[in-house]
Amino acid sequence: MSLSRRFLILAEGSFGPLSSKTANACIRYIPDEVAAVLDSTSANAVVQDVLGFGGNIPIVATFADGMRYRPNALLIGIAPAGGQFPDAWRPIVLEALRAGLHVWSGLHTMLGDDPEFAALAAASGATIRDLRRAPPDLEVASGRVRDLNATVVLTVGTDCNIGKMTAQLQVQSSVGQLGHRVNFAATGQTGILVEGRGLAVDAVIADFVAGAAEALTIEAAEGADIVLVEGQGSLIHPAYSGVTLGLMHGALPHAMVLCAQPSRTTIHRNPWVPIPPLSDMIRLYEATMDALRPAPVIAIALNTFDLDDRAARAAIERVRLETGLPTTDPVRYEPLIIAEAIAAFHMERVSGAVDGMA
Amino acid sequence: MSLSRRFLILAEGSFGPLSSKTANACIRYIPDEVAAVLDSTSANAVVQDVLGFGGNIPIVATFADGMRYRPNALLIGIAPAGGQFPDAWRPIVLEALRAGLHVWSGLHTMLGDDPEFAALAAASGATIRDLRRAPPDLEVASGRVRDLNATVVLTVGTDCNIGKMTAQLQVQSSVGQLGHRVNFAATGQTGILVEGRGLAVDAVIADFVAGAAEALTIEAAEGADIVLVEGQGSLIHPAYSGVTLGLMHGALPHAMVLCAQPSRTTIHRNPWVPIPPLSDMIRLYEATMDALRPAPVIAIALNTFDLDDRAARAAIERVRLETGLPTTDPVRYEPLIIAEAIAAFHMERVSGAVDGMA
Repeated sequence: MSLSRRFLILAEGSFGPLSSKTANACIRYIPDEVAAVLDSTSANAVVQDVLGFGGNIPIVATFADGMRYRPNALLIGIAPAGGQFPDAWRPIVLEALRAGLHVWSGLHTMLGDDPEFAALAAASGATIRDLRRAPPDLEVASGRVRDLNATVVLTVGTDCNIGKMTAQLQVQSSVGQLGHRVNFAATGQTGILVEGRGLAVDAVIADFVAGAAEALTIEAAEGADIVLVEGQGSLIHPAYSGVTLGLMHGALPHAMVLCAQPSRTTIHRNPWVPIPPLSDMIRLYEATMDALRPAPVIAIALNTFDLDDRAARAAIERVRLETGLPTTDPVRYEPLIIAEAIAAFHMERVSGAVDGMA
Repeated sequence: MSLSRRFLILAEGSFGPLSSKTANACIRYIPDEVAAVLDSTSANAVVQDVLGFGGNIPIVATFADGMRYRPNALLIGIAPAGGQFPDAWRPIVLEALRAGLHVWSGLHTMLGDDPEFAALAAASGATIRDLRRAPPDLEVASGRVRDLNATVVLTVGTDCNIGKMTAQLQVQSSVGQLGHRVNFAATGQTGILVEGRGLAVDAVIADFVAGAAEALTIEAAEGADIVLVEGQGSLIHPAYSGVTLGLMHGALPHAMVLCAQPSRTTIHRNPWVPIPPLSDMIRLYEATMDALRPAPVIAIALNTFDLDDRAARAAIERVRLETGLPTTDPVRYEPLIIAEAIAAFHMERVSGAVDGMA
């Protein structure tokens, strides 16, 4: 299926490095499947101009312009807070369905349940794929994830929207190059889109978040020595911290990689919450795991996209000294430093030197 | 509406001090609305014999026997892990609806969505009330709960099913007697049943747990100096910790009351998770609040139902010395100790001595 996808990505009014997370991840990881980006406020540029990567993928001002690049699917590429479907996008989705395009969405609003969309899709033979739709057979977590032999590594963050998924995807191939069988467990709509499977843990009924995380970690561990679980939110995010902790306690990582953005001082869209020093964040993450499975933070992934090279390198060095942990920006520089920390932890653990088999 | 309720409580096979939480809370707080309890394995006893409270409320073996006590509603009084509806109860619910009884349920399974139940209810004029049904207009949390003047106090626990709701309900009238306007914010199906309003935060989509907690705290603060928010789960519960943290960060309590059961050493249904010392639990709860709103644990509520009087008093004294905090079993002994701690905290806070207005 993924070979045949060719997306027109809807990012109207919001295409940018921090404001169109789903769009940006597709452009970074599955660029061959991106036909064009629809944002009238950035049109006449190419993606590279806006994101600093993505090359010559065109940005178009209208749906009709986008159709010239022969997409076969419309992807909702931005996620408003709360994940609801803005009425302003309804005409574009209707236009896409009338043109026979499939529609992919990671919103909380289930587009497939909209009677008008469903009727149009049925008429044209298009499918509406809601990436956040929860499977019907979820169970509460039971701790059965402890039976896995694989080493489970979770990314955690000082904030949401800071690079937890990207860090894992960047590190994944380096861990493989070090000779380990490694799988990625997608926990959000964007990761699912890129990986082709997974489960959006923020979209399940709250009592089942940990159960969902447990189930998908077990699924991803099949045939793997190391499972890289995509993190969500932050333990100090006022809206999403519950998802973060449920994911932690369901996946039961053996180790964590902390993601941070040096230039960010307060929580995304919540300036009333200052982000504490990284050493405090490390202590908090480790403390909330202690009673279930002690799991150290073993590396730091920094997101330095908004710093110049000199400032980025200085920030990395400062954090490395503050935390005493391997630190890099795995997108901008070499992700191998983090991959090596994960591989070393895994080797110690399987040799019994780390008490992580419990 | 509540004056006219007369419940036959379904607790088949599970009526007991720890196994029928919803049933027990109704019997304790709204006994006049309980006609009988249905459990063939305890029949021929009265409620007092099984719970140690509840007086002469009869326990019956069959639905037909229960009808002799003229109920007008069937209440699902037990909650299996996961909150799904067991098929074995279907005949009883069908029988109740055919007899014209209303059906009240706190399960995750929405009984009102069952076509067979819905058709029978429509035919008989009965209503099906799903206490956990989430309102359709939830938003993500924004921190607007910080605008409240009321002092918000949340119960937290070493485990689920340990007495967090009961502690709040026991303390509520004592706080009132101390001269404060106090409201109870129900966050689970049982609290909603007792209080007549509230919102089941464990039954909303995970991204909206904190938003739901925020909304209901604001609603409960109307006309109150002090809001007692019903806690859920535990920060170390492997299945439900996400609900706990979402509730904490949505309600943003100024202070917390920690609930524990001295005889319990591991998490309910999860013997692989040992419960740490109370001082560690206090530190963990306070640490997870720090970045958003520092909130001290100001009292300890112990659940000593399974200890004799001497052992219960010894446990209370031991915890009081360990934590240095006011400690009691607010069900078995005088809840005033905890009410006084809450009132003193509130008075200090409004006089500006506690930095809790931020």
